[in-house]
Amino acid sequence: MHMGDPRPGEVLLPFDPSERADAHVHFIGTIRSPWTKDNCPKNIGRARETGKGAHIELGDGFEIGLEGLSVGQAVVLLYWMDQSHRNIILQRPRHADGPRGVFALRSPARPNPIAMCTVRITSLDASTGHIGIDAIDVFDGTPLVDLKPWLETVDIPPDAD
Amino acid sequence: MHMGDPRPGEVLLPFDPSERADAHVHFIGTIRSPWTKDNCPKNIGRARETGKGAHIELGDGFEIGLEGLSVGQAVVLLYWMDQSHRNIILQRPRHADGPRGVFALRSPARPNPIAMCTVRITSLDASTGHIGIDAIDVFDGTPLVDLKPWLETVDIPPDAD
Repeated sequence: MHMGDPRPGEVLLPFDPSERADAHVHFIGTIRSPWTKDNCPKNIGRARETGKGAHIELGDGFEIGLEGLSVGQAVVLLYWMDQSHRNIILQRPRHADGPRGVFALRSPARPNPIAMCTVRITSLDASTGHIGIDAIDVFDGTPLVDLKPWLETVDIPPDAD
Repeated sequence: MHMGDPRPGEVLLPFDPSERADAHVHFIGTIRSPWTKDNCPKNIGRARETGKGAHIELGDGFEIGLEGLSVGQAVVLLYWMDQSHRNIILQRPRHADGPRGVFALRSPARPNPIAMCTVRITSLDASTGHIGIDAIDVFDGTPLVDLKPWLETVDIPPDAD
């Protein structure tokens, strides 16, 4: 993978995490969205404002794993940002006033480029493995890594002390 | 990986996702918890009830990525359930009245065994890469895949129609 030219203030890891494999991910499907590099909304909120939905195409064999999900349910998607650099540990996002660590950012460029968002299921066809979702802010063709039910008891932070 | 003996009603994939590598994960650190196979709480709620915290040890080189995080902040952890089977597509959890698809469950046994929870940072030492968290429900030694700021605008589901 190309290491990228850092912006001023950015810091690169002394190694590329893509060359240090501890485990393997198998893509379970593909996200189909209306978005390309040229028109992709900057975040899920703006994607929702467009009113344009998206859908998931699950890979062969995974359809039966949808049993028990229903239209209207909230789910968390994990997907692989396959066009991102993995070695920029201190980043300089355009919206921030200075460099920030990757773990303080939702940047797609991270040691393991797994991004996530929480969406609602708008349609569900277990025979084809197609799952409609209300919106998403990623390019068409982004590989899907996981799909989980969103659970208030697990996914809402505990009260601050 | 051992394929596991399915319980009645469970269905296995015709292949093992661990043998179909589309991308590589590099573990960025280790979760240190009070829990082993014998005493691990069943979910994050029960882990919180014990009053026992946990901490993360980031791997060498990743410490600078903490810049911008602060104590009290809510973060999402992604971790690799390295002792889980990956091929049980229809599962029969003890708490459910029948089989359910893996994508309708938060089971650690899934095609890509990445689990997640949302916790609060209780301490932060960027010099050692140690991050205290309020609670977690995984075994000591579980590998960490990612750490992200929790964002209400991304991680709360949109209103149901």
